[in-house]
Amino acid sequence: MGITTTDTNAGKIKAYTCQFCHGSNGIAANPTYPNINGQNEQYLYQSMKAYQNGERTNTMGKMMKQQLSSLKNQDLADIAAYYSTMD
Amino acid sequence: MGITTTDTNAGKIKAYTCQFCHGSNGIAANPTYPNINGQNEQYLYQSMKAYQNGERTNTMGKMMKQQLSSLKNQDLADIAAYYSTMD
Repeated sequence: MGITTTDTNAGKIKAYTCQFCHGSNGIAANPTYPNINGQNEQYLYQSMKAYQNGERTNTMGKMMKQQLSSLKNQDLADIAAYYSTMD
Repeated sequence: MGITTTDTNAGKIKAYTCQFCHGSNGIAANPTYPNINGQNEQYLYQSMKAYQNGERTNTMGKMMKQQLSSLKNQDLADIAAYYSTMD
């Protein structure tokens, strides 16, 4: 994904807003949202890129695109690393 | 989702082709694919509907749309129930 180093501690900080829907432990508060704890890192990264690129166009996709709009690739990689290593 | 009853045993049968990418235990063989064991049932259902509706348009989205093309809502609900209850 063009990112060679990830920082889970930085990911935790950057994931601050994620937790309101996906939970501080990666377990979604709402059953229509995905649990993301322990999810594959590459999949998490690619999913966030797909939202950014407008490749997920349902209602939640539009919201997620907005949520992720200010994040750079390194930010996404750090967030993916953070959640993928969570039990 | 308009489905009132689900059948995990039927879901297992209908999910036969899912396992080649998502694993017989819901753990993806490829790190770019999502693990789906224990994932929220409603999220799984809605994700499959989004693929069917062409609302996920990346490369995997197109493949998934094809994979899911012959499945009715009850089939998707049964498959979602099956994977959501998997440890």
